[in-house]
Amino acid sequence: MIRGKVVGRYWATKRIEHIPSGAFLEVESAGGARMVAFDVLGCGEGEDVLIVTGSTAASWLGGGKIPIDALIIGSLDETGKSKSK
Amino acid sequence: MIRGKVVGRYWATKRIEHIPSGAFLEVESAGGARMVAFDVLGCGEGEDVLIVTGSTAASWLGGGKIPIDALIIGSLDETGKSKSK
Amino acid sequence: MIRGKVVGRYWATKRIEHIPSGAFLEVESAGGARMVAFDVLGCGEGEDVLIVTGSTAASWLGGGKIPIDALIIGSLDETGKSKSK
Amino acid sequence: MIRGKVVGRYWATKRIEHIPSGAFLEVESAGGARMVAFDVLGCGEGEDVLIVTGSTAASWLGGGKIPIDALIIGSLDETGKSKSK
Amino acid sequence: MIRGKVVGRYWATKRIEHIPSGAFLEVESAGGARMVAFDVLGCGEGEDVLIVTGSTAASWLGGGKIPIDALIIGSLDETGKSKSK
Repeated sequence: MIRGKVVGRYWATKRIEHIPSGAFLEVESAGGARMVAFDVLGCGEGEDVLIVTGSTAASWLGGGKIPIDALIIGSLDETGKSKSK
Repeated sequence: MIRGKVVGRYWATKRIEHIPSGAFLEVESAGGARMVAFDVLGCGEGEDVLIVTGSTAASWLGGGKIPIDALIIGSLDETGKSKSK
Repeated sequence: MIRGKVVGRYWATKRIEHIPSGAFLEVESAGGARMVAFDVLGCGEGEDVLIVTGSTAASWLGGGKIPIDALIIGSLDETGKSKSK
Repeated sequence: MIRGKVVGRYWATKRIEHIPSGAFLEVESAGGARMVAFDVLGCGEGEDVLIVTGSTAASWLGGGKIPIDALIIGSLDETGKSKSK
Repeated sequence: MIRGKVVGRYWATKRIEHIPSGAFLEVESAGGARMVAFDVLGCGEGEDVLIVTGSTAASWLGGGKIPIDALIIGSLDETGKSKSK
């Protein structure tokens, strides 16, 4: 999984079908790369989250025609020992 | 998902079978990397789009022998808070 | 597979469903990149481990709605000839 | 998908089973990274091609035990507006 | 597929179930990145090999719970025209 911090939120009125209800959040990973992850937990800006990517993300949402390949699976508690600087 | 800007369009007369109808658009991601994504929404140059990659893209188009691994799923509204510079 | 060293441990009280029991360990790969892998072997900090990623990780845990895409599959014995510096 | 230029060809006499008939072509992507893609279109050196990667490539070739994860799906016509420099 | 040179071998006595018999070889790709690939061909150090990654690797080995996502599919003959420097 990828660990990162929520840094923004997007809306896409013009979209394809089969996108479930939830939010598109921009997340910056420890290494600085940015991605957009789907969120069903109600995470907010600045939150440290854990993201699963690939078809595994779509499978959790029901698989088939769900066009999502990055899903926030949890918000990290503040207890990791040697977090990335 | 990957966020990026449409920067070009490609045609491939010489191609394999089972490619559905749609456009091949070149997209430059926030980090500068370029990829080609399949488009069924009619997006144009300069548009900010969201892309799903991997087998999830092919599954939305019907799966099986569909040889597409990157699909534009939406065009972003201008409301993201801290977009990538 | 990816080879790396365990450098931390995370907990996520706020999480989605279908996460099996096991630990979220942060692993630093030979190239310096960090990721979080799921662990069912009881690995500890400083241990050299081997990680499988993608839907293959979820399939080992039972597939379907399991939202895990990185799994520690083994702890490496000290016998690799030319390990990464 | 990945766009790149064919720069070489490989043969592998010592190989595993279930590799279909076709060519292994080395392709250099716009960003300079090199990969080997399977070709059933008869592409040649210097040709600009489009590559699909992952299980989607294997599915087009019939799926199951086909050990191919990168497939050339088309040869690009010379009409892209702002191609990568 | 990824092309690379075998640079080491690993053993993992402490491991999860469903790992088939074969060797874990460290491979350095043309770009310098290192990965560990599963080998059933008996490749040795210094050999130039071709690697398939992702669920495609597990499918060749039988799919289901096989926790392997990188498999050596061939050893390259010395005939590539413009190999990576």
